[in-house]
Amino acid sequence: MKRLLITGAAGGLGSAMRARLSGQAEILRLSDIADLGAAGPNEEVVTCDLGDAEAVMKLVEGCDGILHLGGVSVEDKFSKILNANLLGLFNLYEAARAHGHPRIIFASSNHVVGFYRQDQHIDVKAPMKPDGLYGVSKCFGEALASMYFDKFGQETAIVRIGSCFEKPLNHRMLSGWMSYDDFVSLVGCVFRAPMLGCPIIWGISDNDSKWWDNSHASYLGWRPKDNAERFRAELDATQERPAPTSAMAVYQGGKFVKDPIFPED
Amino acid sequence: MKRLLITGAAGGLGSAMRARLSGQAEILRLSDIADLGAAGPNEEVVTCDLGDAEAVMKLVEGCDGILHLGGVSVEDKFSKILNANLLGLFNLYEAARAHGHPRIIFASSNHVVGFYRQDQHIDVKAPMKPDGLYGVSKCFGEALASMYFDKFGQETAIVRIGSCFEKPLNHRMLSGWMSYDDFVSLVGCVFRAPMLGCPIIWGISDNDSKWWDNSHASYLGWRPKDNAERFRAELDATQERPAPTSAMAVYQGGKFVKDPIFPED
Amino acid sequence: MKRLLITGAAGGLGSAMRARLSGQAEILRLSDIADLGAAGPNEEVVTCDLGDAEAVMKLVEGCDGILHLGGVSVEDKFSKILNANLLGLFNLYEAARAHGHPRIIFASSNHVVGFYRQDQHIDVKAPMKPDGLYGVSKCFGEALASMYFDKFGQETAIVRIGSCFEKPLNHRMLSGWMSYDDFVSLVGCVFRAPMLGCPIIWGISDNDSKWWDNSHASYLGWRPKDNAERFRAELDATQERPAPTSAMAVYQGGKFVKDPIFPED
Amino acid sequence: MKRLLITGAAGGLGSAMRARLSGQAEILRLSDIADLGAAGPNEEVVTCDLGDAEAVMKLVEGCDGILHLGGVSVEDKFSKILNANLLGLFNLYEAARAHGHPRIIFASSNHVVGFYRQDQHIDVKAPMKPDGLYGVSKCFGEALASMYFDKFGQETAIVRIGSCFEKPLNHRMLSGWMSYDDFVSLVGCVFRAPMLGCPIIWGISDNDSKWWDNSHASYLGWRPKDNAERFRAELDATQERPAPTSAMAVYQGGKFVKDPIFPED
Amino acid sequence: MKRLLITGAAGGLGSAMRARLSGQAEILRLSDIADLGAAGPNEEVVTCDLGDAEAVMKLVEGCDGILHLGGVSVEDKFSKILNANLLGLFNLYEAARAHGHPRIIFASSNHVVGFYRQDQHIDVKAPMKPDGLYGVSKCFGEALASMYFDKFGQETAIVRIGSCFEKPLNHRMLSGWMSYDDFVSLVGCVFRAPMLGCPIIWGISDNDSKWWDNSHASYLGWRPKDNAERFRAELDATQERPAPTSAMAVYQGGKFVKDPIFPED
Amino acid sequence: MKRLLITGAAGGLGSAMRARLSGQAEILRLSDIADLGAAGPNEEVVTCDLGDAEAVMKLVEGCDGILHLGGVSVEDKFSKILNANLLGLFNLYEAARAHGHPRIIFASSNHVVGFYRQDQHIDVKAPMKPDGLYGVSKCFGEALASMYFDKFGQETAIVRIGSCFEKPLNHRMLSGWMSYDDFVSLVGCVFRAPMLGCPIIWGISDNDSKWWDNSHASYLGWRPKDNAERFRAELDATQERPAPTSAMAVYQGGKFVKDPIFPED
Repeated sequence: MKRLLITGAAGGLGSAMRARLSGQAEILRLSDIADLGAAGPNEEVVTCDLGDAEAVMKLVEGCDGILHLGGVSVEDKFSKILNANLLGLFNLYEAARAHGHPRIIFASSNHVVGFYRQDQHIDVKAPMKPDGLYGVSKCFGEALASMYFDKFGQETAIVRIGSCFEKPLNHRMLSGWMSYDDFVSLVGCVFRAPMLGCPIIWGISDNDSKWWDNSHASYLGWRPKDNAERFRAELDATQERPAPTSAMAVYQGGKFVKDPIFPED
Repeated sequence: MKRLLITGAAGGLGSAMRARLSGQAEILRLSDIADLGAAGPNEEVVTCDLGDAEAVMKLVEGCDGILHLGGVSVEDKFSKILNANLLGLFNLYEAARAHGHPRIIFASSNHVVGFYRQDQHIDVKAPMKPDGLYGVSKCFGEALASMYFDKFGQETAIVRIGSCFEKPLNHRMLSGWMSYDDFVSLVGCVFRAPMLGCPIIWGISDNDSKWWDNSHASYLGWRPKDNAERFRAELDATQERPAPTSAMAVYQGGKFVKDPIFPED
Repeated sequence: MKRLLITGAAGGLGSAMRARLSGQAEILRLSDIADLGAAGPNEEVVTCDLGDAEAVMKLVEGCDGILHLGGVSVEDKFSKILNANLLGLFNLYEAARAHGHPRIIFASSNHVVGFYRQDQHIDVKAPMKPDGLYGVSKCFGEALASMYFDKFGQETAIVRIGSCFEKPLNHRMLSGWMSYDDFVSLVGCVFRAPMLGCPIIWGISDNDSKWWDNSHASYLGWRPKDNAERFRAELDATQERPAPTSAMAVYQGGKFVKDPIFPED
Repeated sequence: MKRLLITGAAGGLGSAMRARLSGQAEILRLSDIADLGAAGPNEEVVTCDLGDAEAVMKLVEGCDGILHLGGVSVEDKFSKILNANLLGLFNLYEAARAHGHPRIIFASSNHVVGFYRQDQHIDVKAPMKPDGLYGVSKCFGEALASMYFDKFGQETAIVRIGSCFEKPLNHRMLSGWMSYDDFVSLVGCVFRAPMLGCPIIWGISDNDSKWWDNSHASYLGWRPKDNAERFRAELDATQERPAPTSAMAVYQGGKFVKDPIFPED
Repeated sequence: MKRLLITGAAGGLGSAMRARLSGQAEILRLSDIADLGAAGPNEEVVTCDLGDAEAVMKLVEGCDGILHLGGVSVEDKFSKILNANLLGLFNLYEAARAHGHPRIIFASSNHVVGFYRQDQHIDVKAPMKPDGLYGVSKCFGEALASMYFDKFGQETAIVRIGSCFEKPLNHRMLSGWMSYDDFVSLVGCVFRAPMLGCPIIWGISDNDSKWWDNSHASYLGWRPKDNAERFRAELDATQERPAPTSAMAVYQGGKFVKDPIFPED
Repeated sequence: MKRLLITGAAGGLGSAMRARLSGQAEILRLSDIADLGAAGPNEEVVTCDLGDAEAVMKLVEGCDGILHLGGVSVEDKFSKILNANLLGLFNLYEAARAHGHPRIIFASSNHVVGFYRQDQHIDVKAPMKPDGLYGVSKCFGEALASMYFDKFGQETAIVRIGSCFEKPLNHRMLSGWMSYDDFVSLVGCVFRAPMLGCPIIWGISDNDSKWWDNSHASYLGWRPKDNAERFRAELDATQERPAPTSAMAVYQGGKFVKDPIFPED
């Protein structure tokens, strides 16, 4: 790849990917609305509001791959979500359409299915059950990606990320955790595949405990190697297990299902 | 019912429902951004932009049922769709949440599955395949309704309307047509049901030809009575059948799948 | 048929069938633990406790068909259910095994799936979700029938009766009601079928509203003719509709799901 | 339609269709290896061995629709089946490919699923379970039709005919019978459909008793009107019902499942 | 855990678990109707007939976990099965209800599906097909557990044990074997899970050969480590393979499907 | 096994198996229409045209196992396919029927499902979508095997071989490759199984990338050990990846879906 665009590159996950993906392209173009620091070697740094169509159009130009981590990634006011996750995503896809359909990895979220119970094992055909406005915005994103594929041939890997951190932060993440390394290898699989299509992929490591079935996507050859289980003892030692009837124990979306919707001012 | 709100009441379908639903509530509150004419007996007429949160909040107050036909109902510029179908729907659900959760009938569309072929028979669990920005906005709406149900108990009947006109306007509508009478009877079923939940319902009459399976929703007791078939001879006499490989013959969404996305100015 | 045994013939449903099934066999043998009154023409009357193996053995002798309505048919103490519905059913099947495997219609119940919601549409492959000890006893009965079929070739029609009364007694029964006439025609279909096997059949009329799918059993040619819908106006006029979150509105099993388990003395 | 080819037009079903389909095309071209009698008005009569590629090529020329009833239609020696149903079908599809892909109705058979039990309710996705060499030849035919559709766009309606006679000839046919009128209306639906695709359709009337689910094909708008049930009394009066464990009572394929394979001389 | 109750602790599996589970609780309370020998350190030994409601009530008091291995575990007279597996199980659940709902592991059995063929791969949604009275009693147990969960929130892990021995005793067990170690690790997973629910789990090791799919239960994080395959050579050396049409080769339940029902005296 | 027949033993796969299977039977009987070279120790060499019924009858006599690799294995003229794959297979099954039903491994092909896309994950219940006449002939073969099993008890392992070579020859084979060693171990599993039935098995190694689900066949205990992934770097170094919209990238059948049908001379 010549130029890989990473949006949201100043965020936690974005920073981690910035550090790990430099080998996958000649140039990493990094964008965020927040400060990205100085450009490293082989890096281009762009400050960009996703809601600004013109800016996004320029951002995408010249890229032959996009890792779209940008946008609001937690529950927030609808006005913010609307700007970044609805309008912003539309801007991104329009820019991709104008610039030769670079392959996109779209960071969707487990919160599109947050209202399933943890004792339900689902695949990507399960009807969505989002757990908040953030989750709803990701449902919109998946629908948009699907339409651009069917209508324009734009390929997207929709990755429903569970929890992508250095390590699982609580017991619920023992099921939904994806290691940085496994995400990196997934990025590699997506960009090397002769044909990608528009698959939905659960973004999880090879955890002993899991809720989601990725077998439909095995044509990509992605075999995650990490396992959240090795952090169980550490979690048990430092945290209470969630109570059996708490949202953290019952729902795949965890506490998001109980969180309020943010009021506008 | 005391007061039934009909949004989009100045549109084609809205006018038809305005004329037919006066018996289902003591008062019909009619709203649109377009002119609604004078209020008839038992009618309240309100001009309202769905994108205006405050106005929508007032609009919903005092209603114990909502037939939401408002918003953009064809492919259009994203800015318009965003205002009416994304922000506007959010405003409506927030207003319903503030005002005691009146039951909502949400006019979704067959264009959420427009990219299925006509020789595919699907039920509501089939993953969405929207055929344009309009269809994507309806996917958003369905996700939003689902979330408000799971999170707040807000009940919605999501009606994926095929084509609701006086009669089918082309051969494709022989499969997707819903008569006004059948829609009226569906409205009745939805509001009389002791428990509604948040079902997705295909809005079609009892047509000989059909693509969609409504059996999951038979707990509502809706049995459409009309049949588009009686208009076939008339259509055959006045129109060419679509060519076998044309979008009108191949896709459930018909020509929408080929339509361009509207450019912003 | 020469001799059709009806157990539980003194009960409400048993009496109704006694009156209607005399034409289906030369002799009706009627049994109950309660008083059956005098034998009519072509009737044999037997008082019998189903928990008495020897008595049941005699009861079945000479019969070439059995309509098993006997046993406890509501929530009750486990000791009673155990005697009549567990031990009693075993006795019946052992007697049938000893006496040439007369075809059996086993009155199971919708309460084997009582914990499904009314907005769920299920078929007979849905895992059972019984709503009380009575329902559990019927799960046992279905398992026993299945085993006698697989192991000994004993054919049974397992009929999960919704509500079989003169007419629906409340709004919930608008979905689960089966008319006496439709039950009679089902009995006819079962006994005339060249091969019966061991099907599970939802015992409901052709109601506008329904929760259950009988298509798997259409090889029997049973087409119920009645429709609970014609009683809706009468119910609406005389009863409150159940509240949206009440067990009567939410669960297929209705108030059974909330009923306590009966204490032993 | 200008010219509709009916192969196998001298057979029982062929003769019935010859008499009933003259209104569906300007010219009926009739072919068989057996004597077809004199050509009626608007008829062309052709003697043709389906195994003769050149003859079939000529037969198809100029036709814009084909009702393919020809070939061996019962269990027979493999050499005969091979010539007519394997080689013959290949010849037919090659001819159609050479002559503009006229739409084909291919008479497949319930004997592609003959080894399912009568208490199994199946749809067209059920894996095939043919009950003899004849059934296997129809599996071949369905596969060939599928390939010509996917590869060349040749549209075929694969009709798995149950039993198409004046009336059902035995109790088993109460489930599988299709009236001549219903077949005629199906032919009409197939040729009028803007897009046909390559559906498999169970060829049965609207019988009370049935084993097969046609809902996937309802886009064609075919609603059979007849019902074998009206012949039940007549059958009961004139025939023994099959014994419960006989092939006629147990298997969808009836006695075919027990029939031997024909020895070559 | 403070006190773990193991019922049936004098049996083969019970003894094995007694030896291996002492680390999982401060106190093991062991019960059986047979002699349990002297209590070891941290052990409490109770002789108890499961059919005795009062005794079971005492037995459960003070326990915060139950491993229910007790009851009849092979085909036997119905009177015995009725006392131990039907009445006994009811007594256990009533006791658990009275004493704060300690989590229960219920030893169900592969004999609830014994009549499936070995070439059928099933999950826990497959309708039960028990192979004898013992299997039927386990169907009852699963239904009872389901009801106590839905009605009272009592959590149970229903473990359909294949064959839990030191090593597989015959070729059929190469598929159904579960090692003691794997069972121990399953017990650990069940009691550590924040939320258990009421899952059905196939009790098998990670055998090369298997009939059952446990993926629905992967939220528990149980990954069995043993593999019956390592005993194949030993079995081949010491035993005949079962004949291709024998019950041991054909049915998942093995010879149980052919075993007679035990006569009462 | 005393005598294992390998047909098609002169072909690429046949030669590889000849070299590797000598340990699985006392005698290998090798047949082909092409030259097989001299018989090695424990080998019998037979030249045989599969279309010659008498010759095949003799070929099978005395064998207690058959590995049927013979016939046309690529797209070819229909006359050749008809002789070897249709008539030839019939001859083989008739011979097996006459000679005690030796277990058969039938080399079917991924080309029975060649028209599925590579981003579709299918199991053996997916309706066939053959990609040419060769694929259609294998559909016939699978149907024939199914019929001989249901009707005569003839057991067959239908192996849908992906690509069985020394190593994958192009990027598409990274998904469909089966190593020789894995095929050998599959042959072992098939012949040692107490009951085989008539399973369809995807013939692939444990590749990181795959399209097919073999879990239904895990009762055979086959666990392939190789993984095409280790050849990826080599392929990347020596070949272009196929273009995203090329048949090699889009369809499971690869270029077969675009290949023409061979003309007869």
